Amino acid sequence: MSASATTKELNELLSAAVEYQAPPAEERTSFLRAVSNEIEALEEELLTICMEETGLGRDRLAGEKARTVNQFRMFADLVQEGSWVDARIDTAQPERKPLPKPDVRRVLQPLGPIGVFAASNFPLAFSVAGGDTASALAGGCPVVVKIHPGHPRTGKMMGDAIKRAVKETDVHPGVFGLLSDQSIETGIALVQHPAVKAIGFTGSLAGGKALMSAASRRAEPIPVFAEMGSLNPVFVLPNALAKRADKIAQGLADSVALGCGQFCTKPGFIAGVAGPKLDSVTRQLGELLSKKETGRMLTEGISGRFKKLIEERRGFVLAEGGAILLGTDLASFKQTPALHEEIFGPASLLVKCQTESELLELARHLEGQLTATLHADEEDLPLAGRLAELLREKVGRVIWNGYPTGVEVCPSMHHGGPYPATSDARFTSVGTAAIQRFVRPICYQSFPQMLLPPELRNENVRNIWRTVNGKLTKEKVT
Amino acid sequence: MSASATTKELNELLSAAVEYQAPPAEERTSFLRAVSNEIEALEEELLTICMEETGLGRDRLAGEKARTVNQFRMFADLVQEGSWVDARIDTAQPERKPLPKPDVRRVLQPLGPIGVFAASNFPLAFSVAGGDTASALAGGCPVVVKIHPGHPRTGKMMGDAIKRAVKETDVHPGVFGLLSDQSIETGIALVQHPAVKAIGFTGSLAGGKALMSAASRRAEPIPVFAEMGSLNPVFVLPNALAKRADKIAQGLADSVALGCGQFCTKPGFIAGVAGPKLDSVTRQLGELLSKKETGRMLTEGISGRFKKLIEERRGFVLAEGGAILLGTDLASFKQTPALHEEIFGPASLLVKCQTESELLELARHLEGQLTATLHADEEDLPLAGRLAELLREKVGRVIWNGYPTGVEVCPSMHHGGPYPATSDARFTSVGTAAIQRFVRPICYQSFPQMLLPPELRNENVRNIWRTVNGKLTKEKVT
Repeated sequence: MSASATTKELNELLSAAVEYQAPPAEERTSFLRAVSNEIEALEEELLTICMEETGLGRDRLAGEKARTVNQFRMFADLVQEGSWVDARIDTAQPERKPLPKPDVRRVLQPLGPIGVFAASNFPLAFSVAGGDTASALAGGCPVVVKIHPGHPRTGKMMGDAIKRAVKETDVHPGVFGLLSDQSIETGIALVQHPAVKAIGFTGSLAGGKALMSAASRRAEPIPVFAEMGSLNPVFVLPNALAKRADKIAQGLADSVALGCGQFCTKPGFIAGVAGPKLDSVTRQLGELLSKKETGRMLTEGISGRFKKLIEERRGFVLAEGGAILLGTDLASFKQTPALHEEIFGPASLLVKCQTESELLELARHLEGQLTATLHADEEDLPLAGRLAELLREKVGRVIWNGYPTGVEVCPSMHHGGPYPATSDARFTSVGTAAIQRFVRPICYQSFPQMLLPPELRNENVRNIWRTVNGKLTKEKVT
Repeated sequence: MSASATTKELNELLSAAVEYQAPPAEERTSFLRAVSNEIEALEEELLTICMEETGLGRDRLAGEKARTVNQFRMFADLVQEGSWVDARIDTAQPERKPLPKPDVRRVLQPLGPIGVFAASNFPLAFSVAGGDTASALAGGCPVVVKIHPGHPRTGKMMGDAIKRAVKETDVHPGVFGLLSDQSIETGIALVQHPAVKAIGFTGSLAGGKALMSAASRRAEPIPVFAEMGSLNPVFVLPNALAKRADKIAQGLADSVALGCGQFCTKPGFIAGVAGPKLDSVTRQLGELLSKKETGRMLTEGISGRFKKLIEERRGFVLAEGGAILLGTDLASFKQTPALHEEIFGPASLLVKCQTESELLELARHLEGQLTATLHADEEDLPLAGRLAELLREKVGRVIWNGYPTGVEVCPSMHHGGPYPATSDARFTSVGTAAIQRFVRPICYQSFPQMLLPPELRNENVRNIWRTVNGKLTKEKVT
């Protein structure tokens, strides 16, 4: 596609997008449900095409499709229930001294058109109709998506499903647009288009930084929500190691190799205290990873980069086969910036510490992460407590005796950690709170009832939780 | 102060700050109350010094002192009540198919050390112990403040009050630091210090942009909450104009000249439809503004800049005296970028439209604003509705038949508008929601009770509202 054709398409999609006015909650809910139904109705052909394009397995993709459908339903439920708009009402006190208090009311409203970049590694759940799109639409924003070049046919099918839902429910067509061109240049043009008000992105650190930079160079800077991956450190504490080394080695090997290691939450870093138990876990983990059948990677680019990163770290490789184990110690981890980088793919780095205080020192040396995991036993609690204190400053989610892969989609999930894991640790890209990325408060002072949004009128017609004069209530305002 | 002495001081303050761990809610509340009491106890000397330094009147400063005290009490109440931490709990479902659901819990935690820039125009309520400091401390963050060079002695007195509260309540001294040096270079060094996690600023667009740029150049970019002023357009609708032109002219003149026009919410832009009534309001407003006694401005720099901006717009001046009225029409407003800039000081611009559709077109041409105001009568409702629809996309707060100055400090207030009014329209610098700027979620998966923060344990010991399995409740988790 020529540059001018792309510019024309981008302008057309965004001209339509700015015409879209978020419909009332009931209609928005119907639309989100229609999207979920349309996606659910996509049959075997979707999975076949997606398998061809991505190399991912049928079961994994069937599960991901279900998750994609459920995400739209979850947001439909959220919008229908309605309290997420955080309505706040402070009523007037005309007699207050020295100055009368005006009536002030506040609610969340959509930011405006959102640019979404489909991710390579979740061709359904974080792609064209993924979590970014679902949460932005739920927030009342129109969305323009750049398809990922790794799975264009899948992207097109998912986009068509959304467009069918638009027609069925008679929503303004500006609500959703799909860019034909998948180039980096088009992506930058999307970020820099004056009508775009925020960006959702899941991908590499380099990609995320490029978008953040493009957004900050705009006449009107906009927020970029970039999820850029992570080492996801796992700390195996001495008593847990002593009691269930085999189980932990097996769990780690499965988590590292899952989906060919192409998860942003893959445990890419494992730490423990030196001793016969750690040696045996290292050996076992090396064997398990070597024997993994990991299949082809998502794209040739990703595969090429994985091989290059491993070659550059050749001196650290402990075991190699379908998946790879690297190893080092605290001193060399601290001295080697390359070991702090995520290796996207089926590989993990084991860091051998000499003492418990070295484990703590290691935790202090970590950059921002999506997750950190502790494997700990009853007797490990004092050390685990100290580690958790350090790690919660560095990560978005801490996990106890589990594995970071498998991100639960729920109100309590937080998928977002300090930079460089994400561009903004205050926001999540998974779970209902993801909607908060795409809205901002608007405040009405002394406004007549009929010009207020329904959520702020005295009669609580939507029966939502509201903060009225500082108290949470569903009562109407009298 | 030498550059190396400043660097040394900055490093010392931030080394202490990173050692500060937010104390439990009860202790944090006591500390905030102690600060409010210490400020309240400052006597006549504070007001005398502050009057000398800023030229502001005694009554205004006494009111501002009360507001500053009340802000700390409001945040103390918020922290004591506790529900602001937005605790969310999703309990485990070990039997769920195809995969068990883990226990996931989420709460807001402090971002870390916050750099605060004292504002010139609120030497008490938005300065050393102002809203940014109060909300950051309430959120559990330590604060390092750069005093405004316009009122260094006031700043020092307020800082000393906070330090006395630190001692009284035995809080870690790293919680609060005051930089001796007040230079721009020191400000940039504060933004770029690796230990600083966010910035609070109220001031000029140029100043805010410099801080945003410095923050984005860091190895780890951080959020800058910059409130950079605004035109605060006021639309006077035809029927309101016909019925109460005198009252509106008087109200506008008072609001424009209040505090020598040195408010970020000063109405710097007034629009109406041409006719005898608009002519008479223009004449009246010009006379009222000319006769205002506005006193000296906050600093010589501000006064010099105000005079320069007026000279550059000399051709638009309609009336001049203590305060100034400028005038133009839609076409020339659209063609003259200088008229879109805020003039900080006692001046306002009246834009004469020929028709109601010109009023709407004018609204479409506005950049981001903190506020917009409608003066409207019953018969104006249809036009007011259309204007409100346009304006809510451009502003943080819309006001009905009032004046934008006088920002109520309450849960519903939103003081933050689209760029260039602020750096981030999603956050407010006034009201309880200001605390949200300085926290981020942390998620605990399958964690043992004893390692969870009190707000996330099964027993709801703090008796706060929590979202448990999607439902808002104060019940304990069973």
